[in-house]
Formats: sequence, C-alpha cells, structure tokens
Amino acid sequence: MQLRTDLAVEAREFLGEDLRDVEYSKEDVKGLTVERLHIKTKRAGQLLGKEWGRYVTITLPSLSDDMRDTDERIGVIAKEIRRLLPVNGLVLVAGLGNPEITPDALGPKCAASVLATRHISGEVARSTGLDRLRCVAVLSTGVTGQTGIETGEFVLSIVKRIKPTAVIVVDALASRRLERLGCTLQISDTGISPGAGVGNHRTKLSAETLGVPVIALGIPTVVDALTLVSDLVNVDDEREQETLREKVSPKGRAMVVTPKEVDLLVERGARLVSLSINMALHSGIETDELLALLQ
Amino acid sequence: MQLRTDLAVEAREFLGEDLRDVEYSKEDVKGLTVERLHIKTKRAGQLLGKEWGRYVTITLPSLSDDMRDTDERIGVIAKEIRRLLPVNGLVLVAGLGNPEITPDALGPKCAASVLATRHISGEVARSTGLDRLRCVAVLSTGVTGQTGIETGEFVLSIVKRIKPTAVIVVDALASRRLERLGCTLQISDTGISPGAGVGNHRTKLSAETLGVPVIALGIPTVVDALTLVSDLVNVDDEREQETLREKVSPKGRAMVVTPKEVDLLVERGARLVSLSINMALHSGIETDELLALLQ
Amino acid sequence: MQLRTDLAVEAREFLGEDLRDVEYSKEDVKGLTVERLHIKTKRAGQLLGKEWGRYVTITLPSLSDDMRDTDERIGVIAKEIRRLLPVNGLVLVAGLGNPEITPDALGPKCAASVLATRHISGEVARSTGLDRLRCVAVLSTGVTGQTGIETGEFVLSIVKRIKPTAVIVVDALASRRLERLGCTLQISDTGISPGAGVGNHRTKLSAETLGVPVIALGIPTVVDALTLVSDLVNVDDEREQETLREKVSPKGRAMVVTPKEVDLLVERGARLVSLSINMALHSGIETDELLALLQ
Amino acid sequence: MQLRTDLAVEAREFLGEDLRDVEYSKEDVKGLTVERLHIKTKRAGQLLGKEWGRYVTITLPSLSDDMRDTDERIGVIAKEIRRLLPVNGLVLVAGLGNPEITPDALGPKCAASVLATRHISGEVARSTGLDRLRCVAVLSTGVTGQTGIETGEFVLSIVKRIKPTAVIVVDALASRRLERLGCTLQISDTGISPGAGVGNHRTKLSAETLGVPVIALGIPTVVDALTLVSDLVNVDDEREQETLREKVSPKGRAMVVTPKEVDLLVERGARLVSLSINMALHSGIETDELLALLQ
Repeated sequence: MQLRTDLAVEAREFLGEDLRDVEYSKEDVKGLTVERLHIKTKRAGQLLGKEWGRYVTITLPSLSDDMRDTDERIGVIAKEIRRLLPVNGLVLVAGLGNPEITPDALGPKCAASVLATRHISGEVARSTGLDRLRCVAVLSTGVTGQTGIETGEFVLSIVKRIKPTAVIVVDALASRRLERLGCTLQISDTGISPGAGVGNHRTKLSAETLGVPVIALGIPTVVDALTLVSDLVNVDDEREQETLREKVSPKGRAMVVTPKEVDLLVERGARLVSLSINMALHSGIETDELLALLQ
Repeated sequence: MQLRTDLAVEAREFLGEDLRDVEYSKEDVKGLTVERLHIKTKRAGQLLGKEWGRYVTITLPSLSDDMRDTDERIGVIAKEIRRLLPVNGLVLVAGLGNPEITPDALGPKCAASVLATRHISGEVARSTGLDRLRCVAVLSTGVTGQTGIETGEFVLSIVKRIKPTAVIVVDALASRRLERLGCTLQISDTGISPGAGVGNHRTKLSAETLGVPVIALGIPTVVDALTLVSDLVNVDDEREQETLREKVSPKGRAMVVTPKEVDLLVERGARLVSLSINMALHSGIETDELLALLQ
Repeated sequence: MQLRTDLAVEAREFLGEDLRDVEYSKEDVKGLTVERLHIKTKRAGQLLGKEWGRYVTITLPSLSDDMRDTDERIGVIAKEIRRLLPVNGLVLVAGLGNPEITPDALGPKCAASVLATRHISGEVARSTGLDRLRCVAVLSTGVTGQTGIETGEFVLSIVKRIKPTAVIVVDALASRRLERLGCTLQISDTGISPGAGVGNHRTKLSAETLGVPVIALGIPTVVDALTLVSDLVNVDDEREQETLREKVSPKGRAMVVTPKEVDLLVERGARLVSLSINMALHSGIETDELLALLQ
Repeated sequence: MQLRTDLAVEAREFLGEDLRDVEYSKEDVKGLTVERLHIKTKRAGQLLGKEWGRYVTITLPSLSDDMRDTDERIGVIAKEIRRLLPVNGLVLVAGLGNPEITPDALGPKCAASVLATRHISGEVARSTGLDRLRCVAVLSTGVTGQTGIETGEFVLSIVKRIKPTAVIVVDALASRRLERLGCTLQISDTGISPGAGVGNHRTKLSAETLGVPVIALGIPTVVDALTLVSDLVNVDDEREQETLREKVSPKGRAMVVTPKEVDLLVERGARLVSLSINMALHSGIETDELLALLQ
C-alpha cells in the first residue's frame, strides 16, 4: 500500500537517511526545530518522490501552541521565507484550495490576511509612509471544480500580466504522522508538484512553468486514512489488502484523519503562515506598525 | 482497545445478534434500509452499552446521494419520527454541538432550519392559515466550553419554562464504520446518553431528566480514529497497544476520520434532518406549502 | 447635489423621457415588468451618464418575493440574458465585489453558485451526458484593496488565457429608489463603467477593453444615503448643502440605505441571478436536471 | 414624524438640556469622551422615552479607530462596566440579536468572544490558576422568529436555573446621528426596554423582570432611515409626510442607514465590547494572561 506525504522530511524518514545527493541538517532555533533538506539532483528527487530543491521544515512544540502576533518565533519563520525570495520587486502570493472545505481552506484563509500593496503607490504611498512596504499582490485561486480553470493556468495568467519577481503559493498539506498536524510548516523553493496538497491541483506551479522563483508554503491539516492504516498494519496478501482498502476508503472514497477541531487548526495555521509571509515581505517596517496595518 | 459507536445497531453487530431481550428487524422502504432495534430491558442495554428503548436506523444508499427537498424518502423518515412523538402539543427541538467545529455542527445547523411557530398565534395565525402548523420552539444549546452551562441544564431550564410535550434533540454521532458517514440516520426514544455524540455533552437528556419524552436524532459525521484502527489491527500485547495508541492519538489528543468534504456532509445531513423534522411536525399542511414557509 | 444610480432606467426617469436617440419600451411578462432601454449613440449616453447600448430592466413584484428554483419567471430572465450571448462557445462568468462586505457580496455569492464546466470534457462528459452543457468558466475577482490587482486587469488576464466568446460580469448596484432594492435586475450589453457598482472597481470591463462582448448583470442592494436625501430635500444655498452633506456623510464617509435584512436580500438576489445565468447558459438540458447538477 | 434613538444622551439632546431630575456630566478620559446621564425619576424617564437609571456613554474619536487588544482605553471602558457590577458572584452575559443579520449581530458576535468559566472549577481551576477568574456563563439568545421563544423568557429561564448575581445584555443599537455609528458605547444599569435595539425584542430585560441587576451594553450600528430624513426635512403637511414616509420606508418596510462596511463595523464593535466585558469581569489577572486565555 502507498504512503502519502507532502513533507519531504517524511519521505526521507521513510526511505532511509543515507541517500546520495541529499543533504540534511537539523537545529533548534528559539524552541523551534528547523530541518533543512537539500535534494541536489533530479534523480534523488525521483527516489524520494519529491521535486529536487531546498526544503525547510519548521516544527512547533505543539498543536495547541497558539502564538501571539508578536511572538519572536514568527520572525524566525519569516527569515527562512525571506531567504528564498529575491531582494526586491513585486511578489505574488497565491492561496490554493477550496475555501468551503475546511481541511483544504488553509490557502484561501491565508490569502485573506496577506497585505496587498501593489495598488498603493506614488504620492499617496509616500505621504503615508507606505512606500517602505514591498509591492505585493494577492490571489485566491479557488479550485478547478468551481472555476473550470486549472490552478496552474490561473496563476500563470496573472503572472503574465503583473510580472512578479517571485510567487509564493500556500496550500494545505497531508502528512504521514498525526503529531505533525498543525505543528509543522514546510517551506520550499521547488514549487508545488502535481497532485500534492489536500486538494487535487493538477498543474505544476514552479519556476519552470511560471518563469519566476516559486516558494511553496504549507502546513499539514490531515493524514490520509489509508496512509495511517498502512503505516500501522502489515498486510502482504493482496486480497487482504483489498479488504482493508475497502474498509478505510469505502467505494474508493478518500478518507482523512484530523483532530475534531480541524476548523481551529486551519484558522491558527492560516494566521501563522500569513503573519510569517507579511513579516518576510515587509522587513522595512516594525512589527507593531505592520500589525496595525493588518487590522 | 475500545470500540466507540453511537449507533445501537453497530453495538449489536459487535456483540452478536442473539442477545436476550433485544428485538431486531430490517426492511426495505422505498430504497431505504430501515432497521428497528428494541432493547427491552435495562440489563440488555448495559450489555450493549446503550440506553434501553427503541432505535430506528435508516440507511441511505450512498453518501453522495443528495436528496431533493421533495424526495418521497424524506416522508419515510418523517413518518418514523412522528411515530415517536405525542399527537398534539408544543415540541421543543434542540440542536446540540459546536457551530464552529464542522464535524460537531450538525445540531446547530439543523436547528437553524427548523421552523419555529410558538410565537405565531391567535388571529394572525388564523388569518394566514398558520394555525394548521404545530406549535414548535427551537434551540441551539452551544457547548459547555463556550457557555459555562451544561447542555442538560440548558435544555432543562427552557423545558421548565415553556413546558413542551416532547423534546427532539439533534446531535452529530460517531459510528464504527466509515461507509455509514452521512448515510445513516438514527432515531431513538431513549434520549442522549452522557458522553455520546461527537462532542462531549455530559448531562443525560432523557425522559427521566427532562420529564417529557425525548427523541434523539443523529447522523454519524466521524469515526473515532482509535476505533477504526482497533477494528483493523489485532494487538494483544499491552506495550504494543500503548505505542499504537500514541500513534493514533498523539499526546492523548482524539483524532477522527472523515471524508475530506466533511463540510458538505454536515451541510447535507443537517438539511435532511431538518426537513424530516419539519415534515414530521407539520403533517397538517402540504409539502409544497411547508417548503415555501422554510425559504 | 448629485444623484447616483447604476440603473439606466432611473437616469432616464431623472432626465426626462423624450431624449433623442434613446428608445424605450415597457411590457409585462408573466407578472414581471420588463423595460427595454436602447441608448443608440455615445452622445445620448453621455447625457444620461451611462454607456451607450442596450439595457433590459426586469422588476419583480416585491422584495420579499422569494422565487422557488422552478419558478417560470426565472426562465423569462434567462431568455433575456441568452439573447445577448453568442450562440456557442466558452463563456466566462466573473463575480465582482467584496465577499466580506455584505452589500457588495452579490457578485462573489453569485459566482459560487454558477456551474463551471470548462474542465469537464471528452469521454467523461459524453458518458455522463454533460456534453450537452455549455462550456463555462467562473471567477470571483475580489477587490483591489485585498488583491492589489485591478478588477479589469484581473479579468483581462484570464480572458487572454482562456479566450471566451463572451464575459458575464455580476455586480451589486446602487439605485436611486429604495423600493427597487432586491426587486430589480438590470441586464446590459454595455459592460460595467468605471466607478459603478456598490464597490469601486476602477477599470472599465467592456467589449472595448476585453475584446469580447461583455454582459453586465446586477441587482441594487443599496441606495446612496446622499442620493436619497438629495432626492427629498431641496437646498440651494451652498453652505446649507455643506451642512447637509456633513450630516449624511460624516467626514466624507459614504453611507448607504438598505433594509436591515440586507444579508437576506443579497442571498436571495445572488440565488436569482445565478439560477438565471445557469439556465441561460445551459438551454440544452431540462430545468430539473440542471437543478440536480447545482446541488 | 418620530425620531428613534436607543441612546439616552441623544434623547436628552433632543428634548433640551435643562430637564428636571436629570443629571449630566461630561469628561475626557485618555482621549475618550465619557458622558454620564442620571435619570433620577420615572417621570423624567417617561419624558425622555428612556428607562430611569444611569447611562454612561463613551465616545471613541473615530469609526475607523480600531483599538489593539492592549489599548489602555479598553481598561477605561472595563472600569465603567465593573462599577455597575456586584463585586462577587456569577455573572451571566447574554448576546441579543440575530447572528445572520449583520447590523443585528453585535450581541451574538460579542457573546462568542466572552470567556465562560462557570464550568471550570475545583481542583482543576486551582491547579491551573483559573480560580482567580470570576464565574461567568454566556448565552446567545437568538431571535424569537427563529426560536419561538421571547428573548426575555429565554434569559429568565436560564437565570432561574443558574442564579447569577447580575446579567449583562449586549445588543446592537440605533442612534440618531450617523457619526456615532460604531464609535459610541452605551452602558446602563436600566436593562433593555421593549422594542429597543436594532431587532425587536419585545420583553423587557431588567432587574424587575429578572430579579438581579441588569447591565445593558450596546453600540449603534444603524440609523433608522426615517429618523435621518425626519431630522433633515421639515414637513408639516400630513399628506406630504405620508409621501415622504412611503419614499423612505416603501410599503412600510423599515430601512436603515449604515456605512457600506457594516460587517467591519460590527466585527470591530463586538471585539471592543467583548474585550471590555472580559476585562471588567476578570480584574484578578493581568491583561496579557487574559488575552492568552481568549485565543
């Protein structure tokens, strides 16, 4: 049976830690666990089932650890994001996923709290001091089933028009381990691979397809039920596997495992990600001033 | 490990089908499977871990079977509810659960769509023809964590004041099998036992505590993750059990299994239950007229 | 003082009914009042403060007249929309406005209920009979303040990519008369002029800017407070006008007049518009079949 | 024509400032205008069309002044509330109004953010330090049209059961002046009079009906449209009055004047009121600690 995870560190965990062309380090920064995974070749990426590139995985101590807006750890995350961004120029932030499906709503909820500034300019911006803000545009792509437009072509259309220097995409993820739900933030420079995320966004969003660096950010909101069970049960017999599959995914319907309070998890996750993005983008102004703009 | 289910038919399934003082029958009505379980003694109830009394379990063909308002099968469900109600007099409908936690929101969402009529009376009701409607009051209890008031004492306070002839309580349930999620409706005359439901409503709501018949209605929205796994894995060793428990319920945090589209499931379930209740209560008017009042 | 209205028939009312190059007719169709206004020249348009082109204004008997999905009058509205559309080819439906500001949420709420079909094609569509549906893409543009992207350039980006044969834009309108709120539907082939609508979408959305026919649909959800008062009070003195303006629009803040139940008005309006659009686009299938797809 | 206001200071403004048995003072506290109005006799109350008792009206500098959680002015408001409360004992906070009608949703939105503590007690409370919190229960009454239960009897039922030492009721208000919307907070020890508020809660909630002190809190979210117009237009002729009335309130339908961003106004107002109540009730713990509990 297959193990599904959107976290590169979990793919590495599973395949063993001595992979060629894969660099890994781990450190503790202000109470956060920061893991850095560098998949250096396409081949190593294929082995891991992940795009090659850099992944930073930040783990919070606990699911219920709800950071205040002024928590210095948000600064740690912001710094990791900023490291992957070009120094100057317009950034497009795109929230992926379905706002009406709670475990998939991380992207749109996050987008709703990212500060857009692209339309503020010239004299007005100067007189209000907003010219110290970076130029940012924000997008919520919806899902193909509701728009008839693939997420990839949606973002590409806007990219062609507004010509950002980088794109940040935010999406809900699936992890392999329940203890990671809501506590782990993955940042990568690889874009988002087809089929990743909680939803099913088919077109790849990457430097290759969009023509500019694509930073992907996500927090796992679910564990695929079949992955959880496969992880716990050893079944070799094919027929038994089939029976198990039918029990865990009746009529082929995908089931997910979450805390009952999935709404709270998504709410908090979106707040954490949007705050981190805002802080990463607008390093020219003080946290307090930024928080006031976000109200 | 323990198997948790709020469905009496699942408790019977598990314990075996030849229990003393338990009557069971099953029939097909217009494409719905209708199971009737009568737990005739307190002792049999204890054996099953359920209150003694009558349980009607109605199973729809499929999770995605989204009935139209005018589907005749809603009439079948309405008839089963009506059978448990007194013929005349005020009925209080209480939606239990947390409106902000999707898998627990069946009760409040349902309450929002039940037609309240208790305040319409006298000349106005007569002249508009609304005097053919039964007298109904509707309540959403919230959860103790947000109100500081136990669900049981909340409902009792209102019952003492408005003196209904019966109370209908609606709550999200947990089932043992994933294929039942959103497809199964349990109706019982036993009230709701402490600790039942997706949430954690401690005080019993029953004829005993409220002084009038209590009809409980629910649809399973989740399977407890530990129940799912226990059902699939045979572990006897205590230490292995502990490891398993930590994986499925990290740090003791309860996890649930649902379809990703849990929002849709709850939305549809609430619509089905509220329509059935409205039809059960107001048998004196035509479906079309009732639907017009509900807009 | 200025009178603000997004309804062409109200502009005509105000300026007098004998305008050159303006054709007007009025008829009753199944209980709906259907007015047709044809502004035949640019000059006449400037006089009226409206784009030149065709306007169809449909008035429902009452604000509280909440049509059932199967009401035949929806067919009347659908027919008027269809008349302005090309016979074949992809149509893009764009909901304009801010989903978080109730009186401005008509567009996004409507978009959420329009059936997207562009992604369903080939064998799947044929085997499910969905190949009888017209090809439709759906978009919710958000507002510039939240996205940093002008509504016009947003829609244009997507138009360039997916190349529709026509665009339908839906937006909340402001009328001059309170009795029109929620009861009047304006359909035009003129696109949407800058600054129109409840919000403030600066770029023009029209055949000229988008390169394909643009059908604009809207329902008034507010009356501008200053317009209402100017309409009732005759003040010539400039200082008195200033005092009045400060009272009705304190510190220059725009105030609107609505029924208190503006949420209900917008909800119902969005349902009416989306149903009419769905029916206009998919004339190849029966109403019942269409409604089943919309659930 | 009639002027409708729920603010006692506006009633006084209108009737003249030299009323017998009415004391009035005004001061500036940390940038807030604090007005104290004491209606000392029933007779004076009847003259003003307000219940007799004490009214404290706090005016913020501006509608868009969105206070941070830690703003010291919230402490000023909290102190005024605390002054009207008994020193010890359970307090019941009841949010009045319809959560689904934006201008009426201040009460329920506020209730959702007030900290309930009545269910936390004994050893658990002591070990977590929560025994320093005051005992609080929280209620959202809904509206009679949805529950069939009068707001007054709803609150009375719960009061009889849980026996609080005081009740705080929160409701959206109507003011006479637009510049007050969202900027003015009225606190009184008079309870809420029948028909007051944006909604239409018929039964009086007062010390007389509930048997314990009733503190009423509200923020104006609308101006009645007829009040606004009557205030600006002088019409003596009865027939002209009728014409005006029909224009401003077509078919008798009440219209209200609000800023278009009424959602934002209600959101911010509810946050301000709930923070002030939380701070008033829990003076035993630090603001920071309180804010952490509220997340």
